[in-house]
Amino acid sequence: MPTPRATEATTRALISEMLSLFYEKGWVAGTGGGICAGLDADRFLMAPTGVHKERVQPSDLFIVDRRGGEILRTPKNKTLRLSECSTIFCLLINQRGAGSVMHSHGLSSVLAGDLAGKSDRVVFHGLEMLKGIRGLSNIDRHAVPVIQNTPREPELVGQIKTAIEHPDFAKAHCILVKDHGAYIWGADLWETKRHAEVYHFLFEAMVARADRR
Amino acid sequence: MPTPRATEATTRALISEMLSLFYEKGWVAGTGGGICAGLDADRFLMAPTGVHKERVQPSDLFIVDRRGGEILRTPKNKTLRLSECSTIFCLLINQRGAGSVMHSHGLSSVLAGDLAGKSDRVVFHGLEMLKGIRGLSNIDRHAVPVIQNTPREPELVGQIKTAIEHPDFAKAHCILVKDHGAYIWGADLWETKRHAEVYHFLFEAMVARADRR
Amino acid sequence: MPTPRATEATTRALISEMLSLFYEKGWVAGTGGGICAGLDADRFLMAPTGVHKERVQPSDLFIVDRRGGEILRTPKNKTLRLSECSTIFCLLINQRGAGSVMHSHGLSSVLAGDLAGKSDRVVFHGLEMLKGIRGLSNIDRHAVPVIQNTPREPELVGQIKTAIEHPDFAKAHCILVKDHGAYIWGADLWETKRHAEVYHFLFEAMVARADRR
Amino acid sequence: MPTPRATEATTRALISEMLSLFYEKGWVAGTGGGICAGLDADRFLMAPTGVHKERVQPSDLFIVDRRGGEILRTPKNKTLRLSECSTIFCLLINQRGAGSVMHSHGLSSVLAGDLAGKSDRVVFHGLEMLKGIRGLSNIDRHAVPVIQNTPREPELVGQIKTAIEHPDFAKAHCILVKDHGAYIWGADLWETKRHAEVYHFLFEAMVARADRR
Repeated sequence: MPTPRATEATTRALISEMLSLFYEKGWVAGTGGGICAGLDADRFLMAPTGVHKERVQPSDLFIVDRRGGEILRTPKNKTLRLSECSTIFCLLINQRGAGSVMHSHGLSSVLAGDLAGKSDRVVFHGLEMLKGIRGLSNIDRHAVPVIQNTPREPELVGQIKTAIEHPDFAKAHCILVKDHGAYIWGADLWETKRHAEVYHFLFEAMVARADRR
Repeated sequence: MPTPRATEATTRALISEMLSLFYEKGWVAGTGGGICAGLDADRFLMAPTGVHKERVQPSDLFIVDRRGGEILRTPKNKTLRLSECSTIFCLLINQRGAGSVMHSHGLSSVLAGDLAGKSDRVVFHGLEMLKGIRGLSNIDRHAVPVIQNTPREPELVGQIKTAIEHPDFAKAHCILVKDHGAYIWGADLWETKRHAEVYHFLFEAMVARADRR
Repeated sequence: MPTPRATEATTRALISEMLSLFYEKGWVAGTGGGICAGLDADRFLMAPTGVHKERVQPSDLFIVDRRGGEILRTPKNKTLRLSECSTIFCLLINQRGAGSVMHSHGLSSVLAGDLAGKSDRVVFHGLEMLKGIRGLSNIDRHAVPVIQNTPREPELVGQIKTAIEHPDFAKAHCILVKDHGAYIWGADLWETKRHAEVYHFLFEAMVARADRR
Repeated sequence: MPTPRATEATTRALISEMLSLFYEKGWVAGTGGGICAGLDADRFLMAPTGVHKERVQPSDLFIVDRRGGEILRTPKNKTLRLSECSTIFCLLINQRGAGSVMHSHGLSSVLAGDLAGKSDRVVFHGLEMLKGIRGLSNIDRHAVPVIQNTPREPELVGQIKTAIEHPDFAKAHCILVKDHGAYIWGADLWETKRHAEVYHFLFEAMVARADRR
């Protein structure tokens, strides 16, 4: 299933397909949420902002420089604007080696963030599904950073930098933003899909167990 | 995605598509719920009442005068009757500049209305998704009016008038009706879809957080 | 949408479609649940038992005499057996004028039945969706009988007879069977679909409100 | 629907279809979960590991010897690896006469396992859906073994052997693994699908009833 070197057309089509899937799962809705995926060593494809994500066409994507996040090519539809996530996506690409990042607005990610209380993290444990995160076993205690929401997404950058440099979060492929959602990444689109499915399972399990106790 | 001037055929098809989508989401069911959308400056398309909404065809819609709600053209299928919502829809179109209104019977809208208790409102806050409502930021406290249900929908008009003239609700694009559901609107069909997705997310988040505490 | 006189082929196709829909909604699963619908004044179409209901083909249905429930025509596939519900379905057809009956195994119907405790009924009220049941307004208190489960479905007949003759349940188009599910009926397939959607909404609302308090 | 002697192509297509269905239901996700089904008296078809299960093609399956679990034929795509479940699947095939086994990572299976506490089992009762398990009536008390999770799936074998030899679990077609999921089996793919639907219903009902009390 993972493709060693996907063509641009394939990657564009797959991003569009993933956005439809994420919409069905409730992870993107109300035009919120987003996704990016690498095109080659230097360039990324990113979804536009402010549009119904499940209807984003392969031709609606921006090509962005992976270092600074500059737009290298705009879509034909000139009303489209690049997502405010681009700075955060670039950070995760450059500092954590992400080949693809998805941004979830799923309710379970918000409710899992609530469980952090005043802590800077949530810790997942006692779940086989942890194995679905690269580098983890099912007996790990897996700490995921939880940061505070800000009025504008680029203002999250400082907290995200701190979180991803923190040694406790070296294995995290997810950052929870309180009252907001999650950034989830992987080496490529397929790993990002797998990580998104696993992390949302972890969120739901933690919330269900917390509500029970 | 927003179309500067959609043709009548496009708008009819999109209304039909939206009703299918709303059915899948549980916002219209059991023939309940409804939708309207503007055709031009003077006329609106409205769905019929008492039919399985997910099966409404583009040709099943009424054309209605936006000022008084009179039927300008009936569908070919003469067994169809205009929704009782038409008075309410006209009010929101004329007083709040709505270009499209949807009426939800979703369970989360009923449970969110329950949370008002004896108050005339629910207040959403601490959620990034608030940004998905036109004119709001994620740090706003967003008051949505909650009115009492009545035996017939046109009897809601008085309460709705009071609610939409109340300065506290100037930014609301939603009215909750206790034990019943919600009216949600936007500048056009696409904004109404976005608002519907955002408000139902807000309902679900508020209910989940209330059930936890 | 309601057809004044549907052909046999149309009714067969619609039963098959409804079973797929009910499966998606979780009302039939694990080969449980069922459906019947009138073919003409004397005969009914009924689904087979013990099969994956969402895969029942139009040609898999039995034709049954409405008075005594005798099989008038078997499907070509001779491994198929008539549902044990046939006695109950006939009872509802003959005593309550049902033109179609669906049998739900939905979880919400079981959880709603739990709420009866030792009572012989649950009473739905304070919900606009009550209007979706023929003959009801949203200010009615709507009593639905709750009977005890038995090892075999035909053994439910005595309790069902008592329930449907009870004046308190004159407006009920539903019987809840504890730990089991519900029988829901209407004048035709379309009304049965509407009633099924409304009753399951009522079950879910009652359960959500009970769990909250 | 059950086929007396399905061809290899039919079985391969059906396994692929079942994995898509299980994904929609949330029973396989994040590349977790799995399935196998008999090809003839000596050989089984098994899904690969570490892939997005809903995208497994008919040609992606391994042919495995039912006695020892040796691979008899690999798929053309040589990057695919056999699931670690194969030892467990063989055990259930050889010791319990399973013709097909599915491995669920569904959240309800994890939450049902939680309810065992320190016990070695959960006991389902008071549910009509019990009839959907071969050999059970709705008045049975149905004990399902709950075993402890281990770092690697083959390490579960010892506990599974003990569980399936225990007379209390003679009628179980399911083993729950704490914090992990469930193995569910049947005489063929269709019975395994039915059992999967029934057991997940039992999990959800038990969890909903436990959360209520």
